[in-house]
Amino acid sequence: MSGSESIARIGDPDDPRIVEFRNIRERDLTGRDNRFIAEGTVVLRMLAAAHARGGTFAAEKILLLENRVAGLAEELAGFPADVPVYVASAAVLDAVAGFHLHRGVLALGHRLRRQSASELLARLPERSLVVAACGIANHDNIGSIFRNAAAFGADAVLLDETCCDPLYRKALRVSVGAVLTVPYARGGTIESNLRDLAETGHDVWALSPSGSTEIRSIPPAARMALVTGTEGTGLPEEVLRRFRTARVAQAPGLDSLNAATATGIALYEMATAQGRL
Amino acid sequence: MSGSESIARIGDPDDPRIVEFRNIRERDLTGRDNRFIAEGTVVLRMLAAAHARGGTFAAEKILLLENRVAGLAEELAGFPADVPVYVASAAVLDAVAGFHLHRGVLALGHRLRRQSASELLARLPERSLVVAACGIANHDNIGSIFRNAAAFGADAVLLDETCCDPLYRKALRVSVGAVLTVPYARGGTIESNLRDLAETGHDVWALSPSGSTEIRSIPPAARMALVTGTEGTGLPEEVLRRFRTARVAQAPGLDSLNAATATGIALYEMATAQGRL
Repeated sequence: MSGSESIARIGDPDDPRIVEFRNIRERDLTGRDNRFIAEGTVVLRMLAAAHARGGTFAAEKILLLENRVAGLAEELAGFPADVPVYVASAAVLDAVAGFHLHRGVLALGHRLRRQSASELLARLPERSLVVAACGIANHDNIGSIFRNAAAFGADAVLLDETCCDPLYRKALRVSVGAVLTVPYARGGTIESNLRDLAETGHDVWALSPSGSTEIRSIPPAARMALVTGTEGTGLPEEVLRRFRTARVAQAPGLDSLNAATATGIALYEMATAQGRL
Repeated sequence: MSGSESIARIGDPDDPRIVEFRNIRERDLTGRDNRFIAEGTVVLRMLAAAHARGGTFAAEKILLLENRVAGLAEELAGFPADVPVYVASAAVLDAVAGFHLHRGVLALGHRLRRQSASELLARLPERSLVVAACGIANHDNIGSIFRNAAAFGADAVLLDETCCDPLYRKALRVSVGAVLTVPYARGGTIESNLRDLAETGHDVWALSPSGSTEIRSIPPAARMALVTGTEGTGLPEEVLRRFRTARVAQAPGLDSLNAATATGIALYEMATAQGRL
């Protein structure tokens, strides 16, 4: 088991060795110094795998509720021995985190490097499926987009500069760790990201309730990209004018599908069209 | 505008006229006396429509942040004049609710009657699409199931006795009010609900990651039912043995789709197969 020599008990919430886990709920909103909090067993496992692959993400330390250690032997064995494991009682752990952590599994990760949209696109396989997200500021929705991208085998996610950081604790948790497995870039405008996609041979389809082609009917292509925006304001007019638009057919009514579900359905259809599923 | 005579200002969080709105976060978990809290503009509008249809739900009273009144003239006009409208400052409203209510729109509704699964099934049209949910205890997931059911025109939702109440504040909000529009019954076991569905001529399809038929390939029928369970434990073995099973194809990997998204995709495919969309 990893770091069996290095499992250390924390008795003081102010212990400097675990300072990065202090008040993580508030810090969830700040995103800084390329570090992130992984929460829960599944995300812990994904962090170990990302660390082992190397290059993009590294694990720094792990903090567990004392009674979780035995049950996590397999997950902990996935980390090298130089990643320290700290344990604490429920009272200390809650005092550290600033709220009740019923799962009792936290890790600190580090993003080793960012990549730009063009770097990412240059490394895509010949047949590719990409999600381009615009203005997604909600952590649940960002997390869901990554979870869906992973479920349907998308090769990359491009987030424009107005999207929130997918490494925020809650987004990472909702993604069930998919943020650590699906390659992504964050930055630039949606216009520049879509131009890059078009220039690398992608058929770009903008998803909108008023889209002109039903999503089941869009023609397959070796390279396809799905553009998705927020539930409220949707995609910018400029994007809907310049690119082909697709919709998920719905019963008539006032309200539309949840953005994450609509994106999931569209990705399922595009992945099916490409023969990936 | 509704109740223009009856708009009353509340200055004291303990005012007995608005006692039902006290500490709604805690009470969210209790579900009692057939009352429920509707939150936000869209759900308020759906409550007005449900009240106007009559028979199942009625509105009792409305409580608004003072600066929201003018912007809600259209919604308020949807309620009869004998539904009182109360207004309060942000400080009073937050003290009433027990947390910061940034939307500032609350209403108290009342369920006039419950219906059983068999009553509901007896009133279905000749061609029907029904969702049968099993063990959904999460309010977000219950809300999403209703939202998806409405989006794809399902005729009814049957919740087994282990599902939570869809009228809980958060479930109703996540459903964007669809709980007030899609007919549903809650109670009985999943086995009895599925037997009722089979006896009323429904082709029953149990959704599972290990399902044998890809959801796009299930044959259309005049009456179809989708059975959906929790993300973690899934549907009972007994259900998977007795009924035909369907899956949403995914990329290989450890984790599966979010339950709400999987249900959304399955309903979209079934509604498409039935020619509803």
